[in-house]
Amino acid sequence: MFLDNYWYCAALPHEVTVKPLRRVICNQPVVIFRGSQGCLVALEDRCSHRQAPLSTGDVRGNNIQCAYHGFVFDNTGVCVHIPHQDTIPSRANIHAYPVEEKWGFVWIWRGDLKKANAAKIPNLPWTTDAGRSPVYVYFHVKANHQLVADNLLDISHADYLHSSTLGSKSGIMGGPQPDSLEFRTWQEGDEIHSYRKLTNVEVASFPKKWGNFSCNVDRTNIQMWEAPNTVHVHLEFENNENKILINHDHIMTPETETSTHYFMDFTRNFGIEGGEYPTDDDIYNEQYSVISKDDLPMVEAQQENINLCTGVVDVPVKADKLISAVHRQLADMYSSRAISIPSYVLVKR
Amino acid sequence: MFLDNYWYCAALPHEVTVKPLRRVICNQPVVIFRGSQGCLVALEDRCSHRQAPLSTGDVRGNNIQCAYHGFVFDNTGVCVHIPHQDTIPSRANIHAYPVEEKWGFVWIWRGDLKKANAAKIPNLPWTTDAGRSPVYVYFHVKANHQLVADNLLDISHADYLHSSTLGSKSGIMGGPQPDSLEFRTWQEGDEIHSYRKLTNVEVASFPKKWGNFSCNVDRTNIQMWEAPNTVHVHLEFENNENKILINHDHIMTPETETSTHYFMDFTRNFGIEGGEYPTDDDIYNEQYSVISKDDLPMVEAQQENINLCTGVVDVPVKADKLISAVHRQLADMYSSRAISIPSYVLVKR
Amino acid sequence: MFLDNYWYCAALPHEVTVKPLRRVICNQPVVIFRGSQGCLVALEDRCSHRQAPLSTGDVRGNNIQCAYHGFVFDNTGVCVHIPHQDTIPSRANIHAYPVEEKWGFVWIWRGDLKKANAAKIPNLPWTTDAGRSPVYVYFHVKANHQLVADNLLDISHADYLHSSTLGSKSGIMGGPQPDSLEFRTWQEGDEIHSYRKLTNVEVASFPKKWGNFSCNVDRTNIQMWEAPNTVHVHLEFENNENKILINHDHIMTPETETSTHYFMDFTRNFGIEGGEYPTDDDIYNEQYSVISKDDLPMVEAQQENINLCTGVVDVPVKADKLISAVHRQLADMYSSRAISIPSYVLVKR
Repeated sequence: MFLDNYWYCAALPHEVTVKPLRRVICNQPVVIFRGSQGCLVALEDRCSHRQAPLSTGDVRGNNIQCAYHGFVFDNTGVCVHIPHQDTIPSRANIHAYPVEEKWGFVWIWRGDLKKANAAKIPNLPWTTDAGRSPVYVYFHVKANHQLVADNLLDISHADYLHSSTLGSKSGIMGGPQPDSLEFRTWQEGDEIHSYRKLTNVEVASFPKKWGNFSCNVDRTNIQMWEAPNTVHVHLEFENNENKILINHDHIMTPETETSTHYFMDFTRNFGIEGGEYPTDDDIYNEQYSVISKDDLPMVEAQQENINLCTGVVDVPVKADKLISAVHRQLADMYSSRAISIPSYVLVKR
Repeated sequence: MFLDNYWYCAALPHEVTVKPLRRVICNQPVVIFRGSQGCLVALEDRCSHRQAPLSTGDVRGNNIQCAYHGFVFDNTGVCVHIPHQDTIPSRANIHAYPVEEKWGFVWIWRGDLKKANAAKIPNLPWTTDAGRSPVYVYFHVKANHQLVADNLLDISHADYLHSSTLGSKSGIMGGPQPDSLEFRTWQEGDEIHSYRKLTNVEVASFPKKWGNFSCNVDRTNIQMWEAPNTVHVHLEFENNENKILINHDHIMTPETETSTHYFMDFTRNFGIEGGEYPTDDDIYNEQYSVISKDDLPMVEAQQENINLCTGVVDVPVKADKLISAVHRQLADMYSSRAISIPSYVLVKR
Repeated sequence: MFLDNYWYCAALPHEVTVKPLRRVICNQPVVIFRGSQGCLVALEDRCSHRQAPLSTGDVRGNNIQCAYHGFVFDNTGVCVHIPHQDTIPSRANIHAYPVEEKWGFVWIWRGDLKKANAAKIPNLPWTTDAGRSPVYVYFHVKANHQLVADNLLDISHADYLHSSTLGSKSGIMGGPQPDSLEFRTWQEGDEIHSYRKLTNVEVASFPKKWGNFSCNVDRTNIQMWEAPNTVHVHLEFENNENKILINHDHIMTPETETSTHYFMDFTRNFGIEGGEYPTDDDIYNEQYSVISKDDLPMVEAQQENINLCTGVVDVPVKADKLISAVHRQLADMYSSRAISIPSYVLVKR
């Protein structure tokens, strides 16, 4: 029920140390740790012997020793020690995940080991741009990963859900309308792109502070989705006073069918010298606050309603062109793998 | 699995304000609020667009605006605004429940809209009687609604479960027996009635205080059940010192199969001038305390046992004539609607 | 899915008083109390009338009166009183469990009443030995009872899971090895036995304090399993300085398929005069601490992994000979009763 042959973001680098980290990813327990010289290791978090979690054990070099009966596994999942026993059956070996640290995230590969290629990790170049200072945030969400992605794919929600912080209040019934609204969606290979520009809209409190704007602005969103579930956002606020640029990336990793590990980076072309507002801490606090207070309660409430009201179907609108295109792409991907299309991929859009 | 074409009690009037109230009723999310001039509105608590709960949105006049993407619905469930879009598809409309405030409760109609007639709301005339002063209480119960109703339909439980407050301790093994016990049950249309009188029984602490009784009393219970699940109770305590009358009504609204919204009113012909015991507050506190400490833990414990011991069947006794008659009536109602009879309706009685 | 015709440990004697104790055993609610002259009574915790738990009622002599409607049951489960009713149908009777207090535990019999014979209660003679002072502990565990038993059947885990308290760290990869390791398993009737001796191993902190050892010791474990799920352990630590003996017994009673009542006694041949370390309190605190901090989190984590990773199979090793023999015996017992073998009995070992 999850797409194989992709890199899944598993952790932020500072979460992975010599003390093993347990994280359930796509319904499977995974243990991640750093061995000798910081070498990254990701294994099933399940001793082959009796299903004890290896994450409660001890790291020794690049190996991990099970806390229960002392079995030792190396960084390739091979069982290299069974106490009081010379021969080790090969079925004692466990699965090792290819693991990479890139763009400020730790990624594991799920699928055919021969296809694991670090070049396939989503491209997040702004995180290493000399003119930017990336801020990273992690959230645990009690909702399906696609509900989190859909939240990001429909940037129109900012005007309502974030009306006091990020939105322009454009489109509100009886409220001011933008001078113009341009919105288009297109596909490049497996990637889905969109461009959305609103001209002469109110500047919300966050971008107002970020860019020292006093008047209305033009707001441009350029977004790109790629499988299994990454959303890249390019954001511009501009008027004759100033122009600011933001690039943020959002990576949704399924924990289970109804819970998600949500990772994001946020980069900006302003306030990166430090000292004055907005510092990295300011950005972190703003993003953490908006997402945890506005977005996550909303997607978790959607999940509750979906659980109650089985069989309901969404009503897509013009603003959902990007979501609809992504869902069609996902439906194709599931179909081509002969996996039944999950209910949260709403192909009728 | 729930009976349609009935009014269901949804809230106490003070719970419904311009701030929307979410309440799950018969497994469906409902949002209730007051619009212009206090106009009551009850809608599905589910935006047609993406299943967000409308209850986190804002009331504007008689409309409600979804907090997620700004869709607006009027008090008839019609979608009247989709941001940045001129045409609105009719499938964006949501269900509006007929809603009435009557007898001190807020009721919604589930079923055929053409049949919604406020005259079908259960008749609770004592709540508006000039000589009474109604007290209202709401409870959330973690048990099936019929277990709560059965508690009220079997008034004999007062002698045991409420032996220190409301019961007369009659019928206790080895204890004093009443001089006489009269108990009969009959049907009028779809209503089930019962009359039960015990003569010369101990007066429990609550009625003793209410009526300043010093000696034994005769206790009379007249009860009536009507669908989907309302129990009316007329209660008399009398001896040569005094006679007091109580009428209380109990309305059980299913939240889910295993949880219940339980509403009650309590009216009396004594202590309604205020100032001296029992004031309305005294009555509220007594009822709240007895029901939440005695009855609800018991029905929740029954539900736990029923969950564990699948397939067990009750053993009805003479005192259960009213319960048995109600269950037979419910079985008929389910059968005539071609709904399978739920396990908590025990037709074999 | 549970084995019938065995005594199951239900409680510690001090837990059973005139105030009824509710305990779910093998998925069935049981109420246990002491009647007249301390007479033990164990009944279904479920009034036949309407499934109310009898455990919230009152004990009267050897009878118990239901708190809900005053039904009274005697210590054989016979319903002896229904209020306001002369005849009592026999189907109002409930199941009474044969119950015995022996070896410092309270036992109930599940199965054919004619076969209930107190002589079949597991033999725990050290608990009444004049030279010992038994210490009793009870744990509630959120894991299947067999995972708890397997923990005890595989004493090799002490070297890893309890390396700082009870284990000798023998067999650890790259660590010191014992001079010799002897391990054999055999069957006597339905009982499975094992003998395991390690010579010249490090003495862990607990036995070091118990026996005032300063040098390495020889450690001997003699274990016996009997159905449905009792593990007897005889433990010796010996060198030329001292020799200490411990006998402890562990009784795993299923609460549900995924939770367990775990009872143990611990007897020793040292420190039983009291006053000096180790007192009974010291022993209780040590055992409670080690088991609740080391063993129970581990078996509960195994249960979580098993829930996630359906279909995984253990990889048994030489040290699992005793577990494997017990599982084979259990598989035979289930088969001979025509009960399907539970997934936690891993017959392939």
